Amino acid sequence: MLMKTWFSARKFLYDYLHDEKNETRLSKFINYLLIALIIGNVLAVLLESVNEIYKSQQLLFDIFENISIVIFTAEYVLRLWCVAEASPGQNVWKTRWQWITSGGAIIDLLAILPAYLNFWVHIDLRFLRILRLLRLLKLTRYFTSLQMLLRVIEREKGSFQAVLFILSILIVMAAAGVYIVENQAQPEVYSSIPASMWWAVVTLTTVGYGDVTPITPLGRALGAIITILGLGLAALPAGILATGIANELAVRKQEIELKFQELLHSHEIDLLSDRAQIEEIRLQVGLTSEQTQDIVLKLLREQQEKALAEKRQRFCYCPHCGNRLPEDPGH
Amino acid sequence: MLMKTWFSARKFLYDYLHDEKNETRLSKFINYLLIALIIGNVLAVLLESVNEIYKSQQLLFDIFENISIVIFTAEYVLRLWCVAEASPGQNVWKTRWQWITSGGAIIDLLAILPAYLNFWVHIDLRFLRILRLLRLLKLTRYFTSLQMLLRVIEREKGSFQAVLFILSILIVMAAAGVYIVENQAQPEVYSSIPASMWWAVVTLTTVGYGDVTPITPLGRALGAIITILGLGLAALPAGILATGIANELAVRKQEIELKFQELLHSHEIDLLSDRAQIEEIRLQVGLTSEQTQDIVLKLLREQQEKALAEKRQRFCYCPHCGNRLPEDPGH
Amino acid sequence: MLMKTWFSARKFLYDYLHDEKNETRLSKFINYLLIALIIGNVLAVLLESVNEIYKSQQLLFDIFENISIVIFTAEYVLRLWCVAEASPGQNVWKTRWQWITSGGAIIDLLAILPAYLNFWVHIDLRFLRILRLLRLLKLTRYFTSLQMLLRVIEREKGSFQAVLFILSILIVMAAAGVYIVENQAQPEVYSSIPASMWWAVVTLTTVGYGDVTPITPLGRALGAIITILGLGLAALPAGILATGIANELAVRKQEIELKFQELLHSHEIDLLSDRAQIEEIRLQVGLTSEQTQDIVLKLLREQQEKALAEKRQRFCYCPHCGNRLPEDPGH
Amino acid sequence: MLMKTWFSARKFLYDYLHDEKNETRLSKFINYLLIALIIGNVLAVLLESVNEIYKSQQLLFDIFENISIVIFTAEYVLRLWCVAEASPGQNVWKTRWQWITSGGAIIDLLAILPAYLNFWVHIDLRFLRILRLLRLLKLTRYFTSLQMLLRVIEREKGSFQAVLFILSILIVMAAAGVYIVENQAQPEVYSSIPASMWWAVVTLTTVGYGDVTPITPLGRALGAIITILGLGLAALPAGILATGIANELAVRKQEIELKFQELLHSHEIDLLSDRAQIEEIRLQVGLTSEQTQDIVLKLLREQQEKALAEKRQRFCYCPHCGNRLPEDPGH
Repeated sequence: MLMKTWFSARKFLYDYLHDEKNETRLSKFINYLLIALIIGNVLAVLLESVNEIYKSQQLLFDIFENISIVIFTAEYVLRLWCVAEASPGQNVWKTRWQWITSGGAIIDLLAILPAYLNFWVHIDLRFLRILRLLRLLKLTRYFTSLQMLLRVIEREKGSFQAVLFILSILIVMAAAGVYIVENQAQPEVYSSIPASMWWAVVTLTTVGYGDVTPITPLGRALGAIITILGLGLAALPAGILATGIANELAVRKQEIELKFQELLHSHEIDLLSDRAQIEEIRLQVGLTSEQTQDIVLKLLREQQEKALAEKRQRFCYCPHCGNRLPEDPGH
Repeated sequence: MLMKTWFSARKFLYDYLHDEKNETRLSKFINYLLIALIIGNVLAVLLESVNEIYKSQQLLFDIFENISIVIFTAEYVLRLWCVAEASPGQNVWKTRWQWITSGGAIIDLLAILPAYLNFWVHIDLRFLRILRLLRLLKLTRYFTSLQMLLRVIEREKGSFQAVLFILSILIVMAAAGVYIVENQAQPEVYSSIPASMWWAVVTLTTVGYGDVTPITPLGRALGAIITILGLGLAALPAGILATGIANELAVRKQEIELKFQELLHSHEIDLLSDRAQIEEIRLQVGLTSEQTQDIVLKLLREQQEKALAEKRQRFCYCPHCGNRLPEDPGH
Repeated sequence: MLMKTWFSARKFLYDYLHDEKNETRLSKFINYLLIALIIGNVLAVLLESVNEIYKSQQLLFDIFENISIVIFTAEYVLRLWCVAEASPGQNVWKTRWQWITSGGAIIDLLAILPAYLNFWVHIDLRFLRILRLLRLLKLTRYFTSLQMLLRVIEREKGSFQAVLFILSILIVMAAAGVYIVENQAQPEVYSSIPASMWWAVVTLTTVGYGDVTPITPLGRALGAIITILGLGLAALPAGILATGIANELAVRKQEIELKFQELLHSHEIDLLSDRAQIEEIRLQVGLTSEQTQDIVLKLLREQQEKALAEKRQRFCYCPHCGNRLPEDPGH
Repeated sequence: MLMKTWFSARKFLYDYLHDEKNETRLSKFINYLLIALIIGNVLAVLLESVNEIYKSQQLLFDIFENISIVIFTAEYVLRLWCVAEASPGQNVWKTRWQWITSGGAIIDLLAILPAYLNFWVHIDLRFLRILRLLRLLKLTRYFTSLQMLLRVIEREKGSFQAVLFILSILIVMAAAGVYIVENQAQPEVYSSIPASMWWAVVTLTTVGYGDVTPITPLGRALGAIITILGLGLAALPAGILATGIANELAVRKQEIELKFQELLHSHEIDLLSDRAQIEEIRLQVGLTSEQTQDIVLKLLREQQEKALAEKRQRFCYCPHCGNRLPEDPGH
């Protein structure tokens, strides 16, 4: 009897904490509460760094932090406990270990761990605060549209590494060049190649603070070349991402089209009326409703054309006399 | 009799104020006048903010403002009155309410409302002036090419939210990092994390004013990483927009192609001669004449190829003797 | 006899000055000479603006300018004279007028006109010099790869106008906002809305000089929003151009493919050996050799596949017995 | 006997130094050692430029430099010696000359040549150091993902030249304009057109140091136009690269698809199990595993569909009676 309550409580919690499709009022309320708490935490860290505010409200900040830790810890423990419901047949602890090593759970752990570590090891207070900012990452869970961008960045990892390599070479070369050319005119500013690298980075990324600039004609000529190279370099990530997003989108559109076609083939879907089923497949593949709508319209059109074409093909011409044969009445 | 004049006046006004296809001289003249008045209003707000000009010409500005309000109010009221002609069968006030709640009408109302509110509530004069700048938005009506861009931005809303989320995380992290690293070297500049966020925003957007820059080696190392991340971040919107514009264009091209194909099928259009009909469909779908021309040429080519292919297919080979059968004379 | 010499001289000159495909040594030499003279002229204008150089070398500069005008005038007159050969059947002066009103000829005229105008009207010397910089535009003639970019920019004109409209609205709004917020803290810098527009432009284009920056917390909060909007705004032209270039390229590739297919159909080209003919069509359409090569390879592949498919299709199955019929020996 | 050892040693070295597919432990260890040495060399150059470090550790730096030269020289000589194994049938020295004139070998030579030249010609020490930074380029060999980007940049060379031409014209015009407008207000800053070009470059590339800015209203109006043009100009390379990368990717995907299709046709590959063969073709064409996976999935799907379509087509309808014929049992 107790066991049964235990399990149904676990199932109940699982539905509210893990199941993203659960859209009941309570589930939404819990989510909004957690989001508000995360944002409140980040604001607290920001405000604590303002000395006057921190000194006058120290107690309030401490209470809020302690409450937050309790809630986030409870959230972590409960999620860990009820995640066992995710794959019912499997060993409970294996399922839990899979969850612990997943990205979301690591972020959740990072959000509470520093506070506990502080009991054992003394961490510099200001550094500890920054670690608390990691709680901001907990919001990624509630941001579904982020996943495609991260997926594209991950797929284009190789290209970005190549861009960083080109950037590194250009930074080192630019710093060495400006150091030779400007060192005598501004010995304190361009005192060495590593010191000149600050100028090189700021210029190649087209940020251009202007705290360090070449002043000799030769230095400015070199600077002009570097800024123009920076212009081209800044274009590389944009080009890579544009292609990457376009390809990822094309792959997903193909995927969803295929799924629809398979369902159409086995007559398991009606694209005109099965809104719920279309929505489910859409979320699974990760496209916006409008992109999905484009695909659905395209498929409906193709169905229509196919029907028309089949109708027309049924008129056959006899290979013997060349006359059109009467339409097959059996179809 | 009076009623008839009333209705024909309403129809007359509707044609001149609402019907965008109306290209008579008078209609164009009214449009140019309104555009000139809007630009004049914006210029007036800009000049009024220059103290010397405002003091010497105060009366002139007031007269111009009052005339403008009268005209814009008349425009709003007349549009509201004659919009009833938009859907003749429907209830007059229902049609009007639909218009009032449309984007264009809200902009029109925002352009005159503050001036009237000022009678009841006292609004700070300088804030009131800015509100008058909203009249600039009235120009969107005359800018047809803007709509596709806004449509793409709206479609990619989710991706832009994701970019803003990444940006927020990076701003907070960068500000916290630079605050810890640079706080001791520049305690007034990086006095707290919120104060350091100004540097983080300016750097991550690659604006780089240079009013606040890191000066310690560690701070500059961190700054270099942030500028490089900023380079990648700035590439995200470009990539999203490039894909978004390309997709929106592809969807529209497909749409116009389909419309043409349907008309071709029912022999209702001749792509070589029906310029007016092609133009109408083009405006409806929202493509440039050149993009439409590309589609028209493609369809003409396909028609030609199809005709050729059909001609060739008519020659059949007998499966028994292998000889070509004579062309079916019935076609 | 004299007439004949006259005409053959005209034809001779036409080949050397107008025919871009003429690749003889003399033609190339004339081109390189003219290019060197244009660059020399621009360098002269740049150096003349340096006071010390101009004062010590005034005579030299004057001689060089006079020689240049003579040469450029001779070039213009000779081009005008011999352009008559462009369309032999047409009225000579009609052809010439067509040339005079073409883009290239207007640039040529602009390069010499100011020098002659100076005889009649007195033009400020420094302004006259800048007009001489227009000679730089004469180089566009020798830059074939520029044309596709200009074509794309021209096609996307409407979108760029929309971007400028959005930019204008944002500049005015940002300037008005920062004026209200920062006016009291920095009354000299943000003295009026027009004065604040400098900051707005510099920020929205992500240039960020830093000569004018907000200093109040509210001003910086507004500034942060403006920089982030600037980030998105800067992405618009990149997205438009990416799509525009891709579409223009697709249209041209389709065009060249079609031309090749027509020639293949009438057996007028052999894609494996007719290098010269492929090159001519490539220049006509305006693609790089590599892009053309991709198309040629694709067509060769398609030819091969078609040949294979035709071979395979010849095996027919008898509709009576279902057996494969022997291959038709007549083919 | 000795000859045989000689040749087998050469073959052994070739496998370890040239064959990139060789993934044995020793081969990887040699690679990591060389990479570490290159990075160490670059760090040494950077640190040597810091005066205090160089003076206290001069001996250490000299020893490290000499060891590096010995190793890099040995690497070059051994590579030159064993490259003969690359094309066994060919003349040994012809193969070697081909290698010497290849990009990678030139970089390798540039990395050691300056050190030897220093024996004969006296090179300024600081300039010599920069030349040593060229060793960084030796890393390109180990960066496979870089090659596609470089290939795209090379293919779009023409477009980038056009952008540079537009940039040059804008720089010269902007510099001349600002010189005329601002010369009187800031005679030292905008002293001549060449001096004003620094401002023009920094503005058009949207770097915006702010060391030189217009201060007159007219100058700022001109500056605003230039910054907006800069915004558009900065978008050109992004657009070019986005299209270039997309096209290069499309070409490669087509290439790999074709290779797979040919192998499928001759039944030489099984896309489900021949992982090694797929991997080899993937490296040859230069795509990421994920891009290849997309193609493989697409081909598998097409195979399936084709099989289904063939199955369906086998049901024929008699042209005489209109009944479906029984499936051919022979298949």
